[in-house]
Amino acid sequence: MKSTFAIVVGLAAVAGLFAADAPQFTKDGQLVLPANYREWIFLSSGLGMTYDSGSQRASAPNFTNVFVAPSAYRAFLEKGTWPDNTLLILEIRASASEGSINKGGQYQTDVVTIEAEVKDTRRFPGSGWAFFALGKATTGKVIPSSATCYSCHSANGAVDNTFVQFYPSLIAVAKQKGTMKAANLATPAQSH
Amino acid sequence: MKSTFAIVVGLAAVAGLFAADAPQFTKDGQLVLPANYREWIFLSSGLGMTYDSGSQRASAPNFTNVFVAPSAYRAFLEKGTWPDNTLLILEIRASASEGSINKGGQYQTDVVTIEAEVKDTRRFPGSGWAFFALGKATTGKVIPSSATCYSCHSANGAVDNTFVQFYPSLIAVAKQKGTMKAANLATPAQSH
Repeated sequence: MKSTFAIVVGLAAVAGLFAADAPQFTKDGQLVLPANYREWIFLSSGLGMTYDSGSQRASAPNFTNVFVAPSAYRAFLEKGTWPDNTLLILEIRASASEGSINKGGQYQTDVVTIEAEVKDTRRFPGSGWAFFALGKATTGKVIPSSATCYSCHSANGAVDNTFVQFYPSLIAVAKQKGTMKAANLATPAQSH
Repeated sequence: MKSTFAIVVGLAAVAGLFAADAPQFTKDGQLVLPANYREWIFLSSGLGMTYDSGSQRASAPNFTNVFVAPSAYRAFLEKGTWPDNTLLILEIRASASEGSINKGGQYQTDVVTIEAEVKDTRRFPGSGWAFFALGKATTGKVIPSSATCYSCHSANGAVDNTFVQFYPSLIAVAKQKGTMKAANLATPAQSH
């Protein structure tokens, strides 16, 4: 029976029947940082992105890497929207320049902080989404729903509370599936 | 027998026995772009990186996303160096600013060009590595070994012909395994 179990587990993993990458929570409702999130699907990276028109260019801009759980990514490719148990990790890293042989531009260095966005329509009634602040820890508390991240994602996220307009490899999928809010497309004023 | 075959394939895939992500070549030696390289392991991203001290800051800097085949990544975690059949994809994307609700900084847009680096000590005697230029095509020719990418990677790559000094999540692995050339560490002159 041992080998039969191994076979079933193997096949289930291949077929994606077990969502091994679903969000995990502590008893007091904190989100657990997936140990292997760096092996998840990379959506995109920005440098020094800001939504505040009054802000000046940061002298120390950070990179923002976004990863999503593989099971949620595959569901997005099929439907153009996110399933329950979607977990997006926002990894914020410092930038540096002129190290090693680099003579210009920016490359990534240490993790500054980590944030996360979770879709769970039973756990989070209303929009079905919640945000978590993890800092450099392996767990993080939920951010209160009065925070601006909730209202901003709801109003400006191009697909289902998320900024797909900034994830170039998903834009075509969402357009094809008809799930993209056209008003939130990231047609740039300054395209390089 | 059909189900037995499926079971064996399933288990082999889970165990990583088949390196399904090994480099594929056309009959005339061109590298085939893996259709799912965006689902591979993301190593890092830079913006406007240059190795030329004479160059000014680009007015239209590109992002450089680096992905590696999962089987090679797992081998690196174990040994701190790259196995035969390692395939690294350099995806160069344009940057934009002030699109959608973005008011500053840069986000990624369309693919500009794709390059690749392959380790295959039988196919490429000498360093064991070769570079390929794919542009926006699904296959790409090998870059002649007289090109500067060969000499620069050989001299300046912190680990095994690759710029691990710019892949922050791999630096600790290479240091722990003792595979990092200390002289090539990216201790930045301007760390932000």
